[in-house]
Amino acid sequence: MSSLLEQLIEAFRVLPGVGQKTAQRMAYHVLERERDGGKRLAETLAASIERIGHCKRCRDFTETEICATCASASRDAHQLCAVESPADRLAIEQATGYRGLYFILQGRLSPLDGIGPRELGLDQLTARMAEGEVQELIIATNPTVEGEATAHYLAQLARQHGVRPSRLAHGVPLGGELEYVDRGTLSHAFGSRSEMPQ
Amino acid sequence: MSSLLEQLIEAFRVLPGVGQKTAQRMAYHVLERERDGGKRLAETLAASIERIGHCKRCRDFTETEICATCASASRDAHQLCAVESPADRLAIEQATGYRGLYFILQGRLSPLDGIGPRELGLDQLTARMAEGEVQELIIATNPTVEGEATAHYLAQLARQHGVRPSRLAHGVPLGGELEYVDRGTLSHAFGSRSEMPQ
Ligand SMILES: [Zn+2]
Ligand SMILES: [Zn+2]
Repeated sequence: MSSLLEQLIEAFRVLPGVGQKTAQRMAYHVLERERDGGKRLAETLAASIERIGHCKRCRDFTETEICATCASASRDAHQLCAVESPADRLAIEQATGYRGLYFILQGRLSPLDGIGPRELGLDQLTARMAEGEVQELIIATNPTVEGEATAHYLAQLARQHGVRPSRLAHGVPLGGELEYVDRGTLSHAFGSRSEMPQ
Repeated sequence: MSSLLEQLIEAFRVLPGVGQKTAQRMAYHVLERERDGGKRLAETLAASIERIGHCKRCRDFTETEICATCASASRDAHQLCAVESPADRLAIEQATGYRGLYFILQGRLSPLDGIGPRELGLDQLTARMAEGEVQELIIATNPTVEGEATAHYLAQLARQHGVRPSRLAHGVPLGGELEYVDRGTLSHAFGSRSEMPQ
């Protein structure tokens, strides 16, 4: 049976980009110098996995049924911004002055991987647009092949419900991931988004 | 008050080399795709912090009073290898065929930082050498200024107790960290260690 330390090193490898060597460093670092912080990490991680689910309205991560953004009276319900992931949502929230609401797809259309409209919660998004309050759907999927295909699909869906679809302005590098775009570029691209052509 | 998700992102920053962006990715990755692995990490981390302490004999990390290596009857008690950290011990153990015992200094002499012989457990090491069983002290501190100073101090200590001090052969790059040396180089350097000159 492997020792607890070996189990800890192995357990760290669940984290993205963490191989054997980095996992070792993490285990030793925590045991040598960060026992309090490591204890806090263990507790917060356990609590997060137990209590963080998806917002019933926007599909973002939240501890409550409806997330704080969706529940806020000070957000503009006429604008809805569709993003692929919570990380993208956070990037936009931190970089721009956007005061509307969000819809997190938790992915992008990828038929070969079995990810269709259903998996992206598009029935939910459709129902939302049918309510009549949303006037603009800001489509902020990544500028990748799949992200663009998803954007076009969402634009059609929006138009069918009388909602104006818009897309972030160029400035986001092609093939890049939104999450890694610097704040200034992202803020600019967000501000100069344009209506999507037919 | 910050959300549980924000607390989780903050908590990940306790890990070495993990900034805000990486911490975010870790939190999202675990919540999106690795809830089981994340739960295991939380549990293993909590258990490790609670139960892993230092071996009374070699100061390595262990869940027991005496670590498995020190307790093993198949290791050669005539050879003792002094290293700065548990990671260095592991690197040597994995790269070489060494079958002797270890002593983990948990640091190196650094008077300006208040790290003297006492902090490195050298009274313990001295008592160990006074027992008479150790014949060779393999000094595997890092080839840095402080590591070299520590090596010379240990060599003197060894000679005072009739123990032959040796040092890893050159091959370990100067200024480098043992932990990052490739296996082949480390194995070669370990094998062709030489007796330390007076
Ligand atoms: Zn929400
Ligand atoms: Zn031991």
